[in-house]
Parts: sequence; C-alpha cells; structure tokens
Amino acid sequence: MNPYIAPLEEMRFVLRELADIERVAQLSDAEALSDPELTDAILDEAARFAKEVLAPLDAVGDRAGVRWSEQGVTTAPGFAAAYQLFVEAGWNNISLPSEYGGQGLPTLLCTAVHEMFTSSNKAFAYCPDLTEFAVKALIAGASESLKSLYIPRLVTGQWAATMNLTEPQAGSDVGALRTRAEPQADGTYRLFGQKIFISYGEHDLTENIIHLVLARIPGAPEGSKGISLFLVPKFLLEADGRLGQHNDVKCAGVEHKLGNHASPTCTMVYGGSGEGAVGWLLGAENKGLQTMFFMMNSARFTVGQESTAMSERAYQQALAYARERVQGKLAGGGTESVPIIRHPDVRRMLLMMRSQTEAMRAVAYALAGARDLAERHSDPEVRLERQAFVDLMIPVFKGWASETAIEVTSTSIQVHGGLGYIEESGASQPLRDVRVAAIYEGTTSVQAHDLVERKLARDGGAALRAWLSQIQLVLHRLDDAANGELRDIASNLREAVAALQEASNWAIANYRERPLEVLAGSVPLLRLCGIVAGGWQMARAALAAQRHLEQGHGHAAFLRRKLLSARFYAAHVLPQAEGLSSIAMHSECAMTMGDEAF
Amino acid sequence: MNPYIAPLEEMRFVLRELADIERVAQLSDAEALSDPELTDAILDEAARFAKEVLAPLDAVGDRAGVRWSEQGVTTAPGFAAAYQLFVEAGWNNISLPSEYGGQGLPTLLCTAVHEMFTSSNKAFAYCPDLTEFAVKALIAGASESLKSLYIPRLVTGQWAATMNLTEPQAGSDVGALRTRAEPQADGTYRLFGQKIFISYGEHDLTENIIHLVLARIPGAPEGSKGISLFLVPKFLLEADGRLGQHNDVKCAGVEHKLGNHASPTCTMVYGGSGEGAVGWLLGAENKGLQTMFFMMNSARFTVGQESTAMSERAYQQALAYARERVQGKLAGGGTESVPIIRHPDVRRMLLMMRSQTEAMRAVAYALAGARDLAERHSDPEVRLERQAFVDLMIPVFKGWASETAIEVTSTSIQVHGGLGYIEESGASQPLRDVRVAAIYEGTTSVQAHDLVERKLARDGGAALRAWLSQIQLVLHRLDDAANGELRDIASNLREAVAALQEASNWAIANYRERPLEVLAGSVPLLRLCGIVAGGWQMARAALAAQRHLEQGHGHAAFLRRKLLSARFYAAHVLPQAEGLSSIAMHSECAMTMGDEAF
Repeated sequence: MNPYIAPLEEMRFVLRELADIERVAQLSDAEALSDPELTDAILDEAARFAKEVLAPLDAVGDRAGVRWSEQGVTTAPGFAAAYQLFVEAGWNNISLPSEYGGQGLPTLLCTAVHEMFTSSNKAFAYCPDLTEFAVKALIAGASESLKSLYIPRLVTGQWAATMNLTEPQAGSDVGALRTRAEPQADGTYRLFGQKIFISYGEHDLTENIIHLVLARIPGAPEGSKGISLFLVPKFLLEADGRLGQHNDVKCAGVEHKLGNHASPTCTMVYGGSGEGAVGWLLGAENKGLQTMFFMMNSARFTVGQESTAMSERAYQQALAYARERVQGKLAGGGTESVPIIRHPDVRRMLLMMRSQTEAMRAVAYALAGARDLAERHSDPEVRLERQAFVDLMIPVFKGWASETAIEVTSTSIQVHGGLGYIEESGASQPLRDVRVAAIYEGTTSVQAHDLVERKLARDGGAALRAWLSQIQLVLHRLDDAANGELRDIASNLREAVAALQEASNWAIANYRERPLEVLAGSVPLLRLCGIVAGGWQMARAALAAQRHLEQGHGHAAFLRRKLLSARFYAAHVLPQAEGLSSIAMHSECAMTMGDEAF
Repeated sequence: MNPYIAPLEEMRFVLRELADIERVAQLSDAEALSDPELTDAILDEAARFAKEVLAPLDAVGDRAGVRWSEQGVTTAPGFAAAYQLFVEAGWNNISLPSEYGGQGLPTLLCTAVHEMFTSSNKAFAYCPDLTEFAVKALIAGASESLKSLYIPRLVTGQWAATMNLTEPQAGSDVGALRTRAEPQADGTYRLFGQKIFISYGEHDLTENIIHLVLARIPGAPEGSKGISLFLVPKFLLEADGRLGQHNDVKCAGVEHKLGNHASPTCTMVYGGSGEGAVGWLLGAENKGLQTMFFMMNSARFTVGQESTAMSERAYQQALAYARERVQGKLAGGGTESVPIIRHPDVRRMLLMMRSQTEAMRAVAYALAGARDLAERHSDPEVRLERQAFVDLMIPVFKGWASETAIEVTSTSIQVHGGLGYIEESGASQPLRDVRVAAIYEGTTSVQAHDLVERKLARDGGAALRAWLSQIQLVLHRLDDAANGELRDIASNLREAVAALQEASNWAIANYRERPLEVLAGSVPLLRLCGIVAGGWQMARAALAAQRHLEQGHGHAAFLRRKLLSARFYAAHVLPQAEGLSSIAMHSECAMTMGDEAF
C-alpha cells in the first residue's frame, strides 16, 4: 500500500539540465558527480533503499507513533532495524566531510538522495538530518578535543544528535530563552531549563544522543546577544570514551501531533534532579546563535526539500488512484465508465500537483548546486555571486515550497474523493506530515521578513536584480524558439517577472519608511518570488526538453511530459503572479486599525 | 479550551443588511423574522446552547471518536445527553414544516442557527441535519401512511435518519450502484447490498434509525434511470407503532477518518442474513434520484455552510491565540516583546481568515433568503427569478466555500505556530473536520461540472447575467460614494466582474464544441464566481456600514471593522480574479496528451 518509486529519470534530468552539474562536478571532492556511472549507482541504490526499507515503514510509523515512558521513548516497530541498515549502508554521512569520516558528496547529489529518503519516510529521515546539522555545527564551533570525542561516533551513526532551541516562551523569538548554564571550576557548565518541540530528543535508535543546547550564562546580555551553545550528551563519557553515567537530562513527554507521528517531539528537562546537566561550551560565550545560524541555511533548505519530497509522494498516490479508480462517464463521451484520470478536472489536479512538484525540485537542485559552488568554487567571485543567490533564494524556497506543498498534498486527498478522508487510504498522511514545514525552522512569516529585510532592503535589491537578469536570458531564448508553445511560456513568464519587479521595487523603496506596511504584504511577495523561481526553472526545463527532442536525443515520451508540465505551470501557476503583486503592495489596511478591530 | 462565542452582532448585520430579510419576513409562516425581538431571542438562545452544551463536547468527540462493536456504535461521552437536550429544546425541527410538528422557521433564520451548532460541534450537528433532509424527502415522496408512521417521531427527534447512496463502486457516479430491492407479495421490498460512508448509519442517540436507501428493482433500466428510493427502518414497527424486530440491516464497521471523529461513518449491510432488509418504496419506481435531488440543494447548501461555520471557529481560535501569545518585537518598533497580533503578517493572516469567512456567511445568508423567496413568495415570477439565482449559486457557494475553508482553517494552524501542529491545542481540528466539505455531497469537480453544464451552458448564461446586473447596481452605488475607500473597492470588484464575464462567456461559447477543455478549467471558473460573489456581498456590506456610520446609527466600532474587512477582501482576494480567469480559459493542455503522460 502506498509504494514509493523514486522519479529517477526526472531527477537525472534536473541534475543534468538545470543544476549547474558541470561546474559542480569540477569541484574538488566531487568525483561522484563527474562520473555519471557513479552518480547513477548512488541514485539507484538510494532509490532501492527508499522503496524497499523506508517506504514500507511509513504508514506503520504513522499508525504506531512513538511510545513514551519514564524509561525513554520507543520508536515504531521496524524503525530501529531500518536505522541500523541505514547507517551500515553509510547513508547517514554522505554529506559529511571526508576528513571526519563522511563521504563528502556534493550537496547537489545529496539533495537528490535525501529527497528519496524523505519522500519514502519523512519521519524517519529527519533523525539523520538532525545529526548532520549537529556535526556541521560541531565542526564549526567545537574545540579539537570535543571534535575528536564526539564527531566520529556521530558520523558512523552510532550516536544521534539534536538541536535544542525552543522554550515555551521562546519560539520564533529565540532571544527570549531562559535555560541557564552555570560555569563550573573544571571548565564545564551545568544546565538548567526546559526545552520543547525537540525532534528526536529521546529515542531507541542509538546508544547515545548528543544535544546541542542554547542557554544563557549568568550575567550574559539580554536577548539574542547573550545566548551560548552547549554540547550536552545524554550519557557522559568515561575517560576512555566509553559511555558513563546518565547526564541530568530527561525527556518529560512527547507531543501528539497532526503528522510526523513516528518522529518523537520531546519536552526535554535539563537539570531536573537539581545537579544540572553537564555541558561543554561550543564556540565563544554569547555567540551561540552565530554557530546555529551557520546551520540555518542547511536546515531551511532541508525543510524546503521536505516539501518537494512530500509533494512527490502525494502525486504518486493520487496518480495511482486516478489510474485505477473507474467512475463516471466523460462529458460528450461514450456510455462506458472510465478511470478518473480521464476526467478533465482530475487531470487538472494531477498536473497542478506535478508541475508544482517539478518546479520545487528544479529550484531545489539549482539551489543545491549553487550552495556547492558558493562553498567550494576556486574563484572567490564565483563563490560570492553564488552565495548572494543562495542567501536570496533560501527563504524564498523554504517559504514558497512549504506553502505550495500544503496545496499539493491537500489536492491528493481531493483526487481520492471520499476515500481520501479515510485514514486507511494513506491519502492524508503527506498533508499531515508536511503541514509543519511552513512552521518549523522559521515560519513563512519569518522567511518573508528575512527576504524583505535582509535579502532585498539591505542590498537595495542587487541580488534580486542579478537573478532576474539570468531570467531575462532565458526569456530571450524562449522568444527565439521556433516552437509556439515555448513563446507562450515566455509571455506568461515575462508578465510574472514584471509583476515581481514592480512589487519588489515597491517593497525596497518603502521598507525603511513603512516597514510594517511592507511586511504585511511580505508573504504574498515571497510567494510571488517563489512562483517566478519555479517558472524560471520550468522554462529552462522546457528549453532543454525541446532541444533534446529536436536533436532526437533522450527519451521522447519523458521530454514531451516535461514540456507539458512546463506549459501547464505557465498557464495555471504563473497567472497568479499579477494578483500577488497587487496584493503585496496593498496591505496597508492591515496596519491601520487597532488590535481591537480584529 | 477552544470556546465558541457566536458572532451575533455580525450575524444580525448580515441578516438585516444583506439577506433580503424584509421580503422574507413578509412570507407566510415567517413571523419569527418579522418580529425582531423574537428573532433575537432565537439567536441568543441558540448561541447559548452552542456555547454551553455543544462546544465543550467538540474536542471530547474529536479525541474519543466513536466505538463500534457487533452490538452497535457508541458515540463519544456526553453526546447522547446533549442530543436529548437538543431535541427537548426543539432545535432539531426548527426548519421542518409546522403541519408535521416542526417549527417552520424560514431557511434564512435556520441558517444562522445551524451555523452556530456547526461551528461549535460539526460532528454532532450533522446528525439532526441528516434527519431534516430525510423528513423533507419523506414529505416529497412517501405515501400518506408512511408519512404518518414515520415523520412524527423523526420530527420530535425520537428517531434519526440517514441517506444511503454510496457503494464501493458508486461514489460520484451514483448510477453505478448495485444494491437490489426485490418486490414482495405484500407490496414491501427486500433489500440486499452494501453501502459505504453512511454518516450516522448506526449510533446510540435514538431508539430507531430510518434509512433512506437507493437500490435497483430487478429489471430496472441501467444507470441512473433505474434507481428507486426505499425507506428501511432499523427496527420494524408493530401494528400499533411500537418498535418490533430488528430489520436485516447491520453496521459492519466504522471508518477512521482525518476528522469528524465523533460522527460515525458506517458501512451498512442490507440483507446480510439472507432474508433481506424490509423496505418500502418512496415515490415511483426508478425515480429515486428525483426524490434525492429534491434534497440536493439543501444538502449542498448545508455543506457550504459547514465551511463558513468551521472558518469562523478557526478564526476565533487563531484570534484568541494571537492576542494572548507574546513573541518577538516589531520591526522599527521598541524593545518590548508584543502579542503576535501586532505583527503585520499575523494581521494579514487574521484578516484573510476573517474577510473570507464574512464573505462566505454573507453569500450563504443571501442565498438562504433567496431560497425562502423561491419556495414561498406569492408572486410566481419572483419565485422563478429567485430559483434561477439559487440554482446558479448553490454549486458556486458549495464549491468555493469548501475550498476556501481549507485555506482559512489551515491558516489558523499557521497563526498558532509550533503549537498549531500539536493536537492538544485544538488548532488542527477545524481543518481536519472541514476537509471533507469539498468532497461529500458532490466534490468540487462535480459542483464545477454542474455549474458549467447545467447552470451556464444550458440557459446560455441568462441566470449569470441577471446576477451580474445586480452587481452593476452595487458598483454604481460604490462609484457614487464620497468615501475613497468605497471607490477603491468598486475598482477591484469591477475588474473581477470583468474577469468573470470574460471567462464565463468563453466557457458558454465553447462548451458544446469542446466540453472537456472547458471542464478542465471549470474549477478555477467556479472559484472565480465564488470570489466575485463574496466581493459583491462584501461591497454591499461596506455600503451599509458606511451609510450607518454617516447617519450615526449602530455600533461604530463594529461598522468600521466591517469596512476594514471589505477593504481587505477587495485588496487581497479580488485581485486573484484575473489570474483565475486566464487559468479557466487556458486548460487545453490538460487534455492534449494521453493518460500515459501523467
């Protein structure tokens, strides 16, 4: 029930045609991309693992959830065994640097691999994701001795890690947190406080769990300038590195959530016994948020990709059902009942799902390639230019993809009709699982604020203009095409770009004087940016597909499907741009009345 | 937790200003509306019942669900007692004709009352709704002896009723059903077959349950022309009317659903023992769908109103949380953390929720008033004209409101941030409960098909033009206003109307030649119609509010809030119209490729 088949042909097309793979493959440590056979082998093997090991546990985990007791958290049946297979195959460390025992694969390739794990079992995949983020933070902030003690067993997957930011009064505003870390004579700290919404804060997949915890040292400045980052292991280590006594940290309960049932969301109590949880400072005092922010782009990108992954899963479910379910006759057609995929509105829904999923994927992979180049290209100008694109696009991708995924996964329920409302069909799980993507790692509001303030107003729109000039090149190529369909795509994309230019110019011009009014329209502006980003990539995809078709290269049926997706995106998604542009610029009425008017 | 306070001031405003109450109040049997004190007393009492009796059971029902056993279905704790209070107070029969013991209140007033019950506890409210539909079907189709045997105890609420249409292979296509009804020598029938998704098919709220069942008599024509409607009681009646033996009908199980947990969704087996369930024919042989269609407008309207009701509930929850949750500082503001209602994007979300909820309610009440006039006005021309409006607007309202409610209720989760994902907060229940509204009583596809084929193409757009000419009058009044804000509303509404005219003219002109292409854009067209309907009513509301403010009448703070909602709707919802119009007319690519292209 609800199998998952990785869309490998599509993934390879996006990698090859849209994600700057040639430049990425030239980076040091990127052999896996420069050798197409190796790339294929990795993708094939990940697809097999996702299909055979992870997907069958997805509904199991949704139904069983996790069990909490005083002794700890038990994950769903099969999860512990799957985790062992996962780390034995080395999937947990493909993105970690080879100098620490990881496989150091480029972000671009890891993005495709991660997508498969998340599509097949989002709740499972989030555990190794968190460990990956933590290892990167340790590499950035830990002393050499902490690195050597902790990183190796995180990289092997023997241990897992968590990120502890949120407290009941400190959600989007991390600066409001109160957990305190008292310095000890031996250079360690003792932590006291409560953290909430800690994913995989406690579980039975690994023998130790390394918590990265934000806390305040007494006397630290107020707000976000007085926050330090600590490493707090569940089990302390003996001098020889073996596991010693249980630290003073405890999981006080797990949440019952709309989705992600198999991923434990824990309330963590530090210092509950009165002794305090032993922790080690990472990086400098009061600079904890800087180390955390180091991971923020990674984490936000990963959450954006959860949206692609769940949308793909929802599309596969809806498509399978639409092919198999026979119901109703076609208007103007014969007297035979037909599979519902023949019904026009079902086709519209499926194409709306597919074209947006493909757009998200293309933006994600293009962004992943840019992240590789920004990090490791030999030319510092390329690094700077790509980093500016990445910084601009991360909040756009995260915000747009997570909001779009709500629509796509909800549409899958609709395609299923009455059965979609029944939990046994599995149709609602992608919506329930992905609904949090627009919330965690910064809500869509937070992404839109970041976009307007840091990515548009701060540089006066320079990064945006650089990106839009890339789109102009694509528009010229579309205009030159012999194929009228491509010119239609150009016309819709051009109007959408103009709408974005108008609204973003307005936002940049008005942000200093009237920040609240601009912010009231910032989410529509972010969605507009995302829709244009998707349209840009779908247009590039259409050009590539048309070129291969003309040259007689490649799989013609696939290439025609891609053209269809691009046309549909241009006809059904891009026309939303003008409305969003107007909306983004006309939100002043939200700020004109007092709170009592609500 | 999650209280519900009926928005009485808003309801009275819509009743008084937008719903043609003066004409409705002049109908026979409409004293309750001609006497404002009586109207108020009914609304106040319904609000109290919703708040004190139904709302406290809402989360209880969501958590407890229903329990099935071989012996039957047990509803959630407190539901049976609440049902007794409900029927003792007579709330179950306010809309039923007085000649059968009901209170015969106008649909307009019942709509406001029903909204409160549904907002406070949708799962509960659906049970008496179903009985109401069934009584109306019995009045339309039953023999006098069946009427006198069954209607009185349905009207008192001593018994409940159900509608049995769906079978595993017959969902949207009711004509595919196979349940068979074999005629007996005594004039009764014996039914054999399985029905699925039967709401309240079995429960412990009443001593008997009267099933209305669609089935085929052997030899009947194929498809929808061979379907008859039968009355099948759970307990047969003795000659003296007392309950006799259990009929051969059984609930074989209940579904586990995304929402509506407290409403049992049953699989019903007729004739499982081999004897067959004893049933009585309602109306003529093979004309069962006609009797069912008699209730269809009622049922679709009710489902549309579920959308208003759940959106209101979600808004109240989000607003309460936004006022109480302190988090983050304002851009360009002070150093103090503020309640999140001060944040621009939270305000945008709240206004998006509120303005659309108010628009749905206004369309609903205007439609309810039109239904009263269509049914009972003394002038046949008025009846015809109002019926044409009702027939046009029912699929629009049902489809648009149910799709919009998904957005509104999902936005409430977003306002709640991380807490919105936690089930204990109750934030996800409105989304889970309302998600089915776009599916049952005809999916949005079915509504859009009905709109295009029966309501637009069949009369060449006459009913639509009549409605649009009413909007023109409103536009003229807005243009004449001294207030610039009203003129801004006019400009947005005028553009949206033009967009609707273009797309609907296109659909009407092309439907005969290219039905599939037009249907592929029919849901965007339906949404466009709905957005314009909402904009029309919000514009009328703004005119009324402005008039009262100018005249110094009424509650100024409320009237200014109403103006704010109308301005926001014009600025954030109406600009979507142009995009939808383009989308509706450019869906041909959905039909150009074979099924294998998906």
